[in-house]
Amino acid sequence: MTKNKITSLFKIKYPIIQGGMIWCSGWELASAVSNAGGLGLIGSGSMYPEILEQHIRKCKAATDKPFGVNIPLLYPQTDDHIEIIIHEGVKIVFTSAGNPKKYTAYLKEKGITVVHVIANKKFALKAVEAGVDAIVAEGFEAGGHNGFEETTTMVLIPTINEITNIPLIAAGGIASGKAMYAAMALGADGVQIGSRFAATHEASGHDDFKQAIVDANEGSTKLTLRQIVPVRLIKNEFFEQVEQAERDGATKEDLYKLLGRGRAKLGMFEGNTKEGELEIGQVSGMIDSIISVNQLVEEIVAEFNLASKIMNGISL
Amino acid sequence: MTKNKITSLFKIKYPIIQGGMIWCSGWELASAVSNAGGLGLIGSGSMYPEILEQHIRKCKAATDKPFGVNIPLLYPQTDDHIEIIIHEGVKIVFTSAGNPKKYTAYLKEKGITVVHVIANKKFALKAVEAGVDAIVAEGFEAGGHNGFEETTTMVLIPTINEITNIPLIAAGGIASGKAMYAAMALGADGVQIGSRFAATHEASGHDDFKQAIVDANEGSTKLTLRQIVPVRLIKNEFFEQVEQAERDGATKEDLYKLLGRGRAKLGMFEGNTKEGELEIGQVSGMIDSIISVNQLVEEIVAEFNLASKIMNGISL
Repeated sequence: MTKNKITSLFKIKYPIIQGGMIWCSGWELASAVSNAGGLGLIGSGSMYPEILEQHIRKCKAATDKPFGVNIPLLYPQTDDHIEIIIHEGVKIVFTSAGNPKKYTAYLKEKGITVVHVIANKKFALKAVEAGVDAIVAEGFEAGGHNGFEETTTMVLIPTINEITNIPLIAAGGIASGKAMYAAMALGADGVQIGSRFAATHEASGHDDFKQAIVDANEGSTKLTLRQIVPVRLIKNEFFEQVEQAERDGATKEDLYKLLGRGRAKLGMFEGNTKEGELEIGQVSGMIDSIISVNQLVEEIVAEFNLASKIMNGISL
Repeated sequence: MTKNKITSLFKIKYPIIQGGMIWCSGWELASAVSNAGGLGLIGSGSMYPEILEQHIRKCKAATDKPFGVNIPLLYPQTDDHIEIIIHEGVKIVFTSAGNPKKYTAYLKEKGITVVHVIANKKFALKAVEAGVDAIVAEGFEAGGHNGFEETTTMVLIPTINEITNIPLIAAGGIASGKAMYAAMALGADGVQIGSRFAATHEASGHDDFKQAIVDANEGSTKLTLRQIVPVRLIKNEFFEQVEQAERDGATKEDLYKLLGRGRAKLGMFEGNTKEGELEIGQVSGMIDSIISVNQLVEEIVAEFNLASKIMNGISL
């Protein structure tokens, strides 16, 4: 591809970033994506510090291409994670779910490229002010944690594009080269793809979770826990318990108690697809196979180029 | 533009359809859109039969271009509306919010082009089976009534495009030529634009409602009444009452009572922006002016062509 802001920033072949996902994106997925020409991210959110260290080391051994680590800023071990990342010489960090002002300057000082994930204008501007190198704008259709405004990718990307010209990565609802092309037409310089990469051989989620992604149809996921921290889940028994509790007027404390500890691990890593928390995007309804990262990246590239050919020269 | 499925079907210049909106789209808006090269629709949902008859007659007098009537299939006067449409020689009907099997065959017999609005695969296939000429696929970000699955435009358009090759019109989150281009890259043959046309001089909504659209920012609208019939509204006093009632465990009957009669008229036509129901899409956050239909269509065309130029020849 003609070099663009994202391929230049990360020194990668394609502006395709694999979303950092808890329980799904370890060194195997991240290195496979980087080797295929995209940017792989290790999702540190589900890792103890020493586990993260192992994943970084294995990733370095598995690829000589750039890769990064995603750090959701809502866990107590964040400081430890950041020290490991610096010590291990990781060059790219994606932060999410927190204040971009907290770590950006420190990471930049250490020569690290910093990207922050946002879902609204306020945090986009905060991230730019904090000095990040790029932002990921993630729409309502995305899996996992999500913004309170519920702004969809179709509306969010042009909205953010209007207020800043910082390199912009679109996320939410993107699982194909066609959607990638559309996102870039909306103003994005690249895309972050989560759900589709969760259903690859190299993803570290349980096979039964991957199968649940394949089995998902339209309407199979829904945003829930809107009161405490909105999260998009597959509608399973656990989801129904949460919804029922909300209908019964549960307090935030009740909801935290119901959520408990380890629900996400139970669902996504241990494969208890009934009682676990299954974070995935709406686009799971369009995913019908578990394939290799290489095949997926090749398909996305081919679809993108086909979309470009179909749209070539169209004018009103 | 090179003729496509939608311009050919309706014999119009641009594949831009103005959404039929209660209280906002009378003959003045519909004829202006048709005169500007798109397809104008009279929104019959808020009209008594004799009012609809007047609007059709005025529209015929104001344009010699094709126009249509939108009929939400949830009002008691639908049969009367249909007889008026046939009697007045209207050639295009968009049905929504109901079963496409009920009227499609009858309308087609009378030589009318029929389009049905859907928000999921099930109703898309039902509409195709019923023999409609095209479908509008409307995403979660759209204003007014909305699907239970909450599928966004970014996911819905390729999903529907995969299961049928019937002419496909994308709706929800589209207010600019850039978004129109993206929607067409996703597989749509044309777009339906509601919110942006509601904020034009020719729209029949109250000036204070138009100002509320301009004042809206991201997060200003939200899908509510999820239990009875999901509808996207601007968050005002009335909206808060509905949300509070839902949190307090209101029954469907309680909610219907709170909704009452004439709430939409009160808000959108009479301009009581506090106590009325204000139906508008998420994209209202991007609308910052009230302009003429002609200017709007010109802008959309220019933005579309610019997007096409920017994306020209891009490949991975």
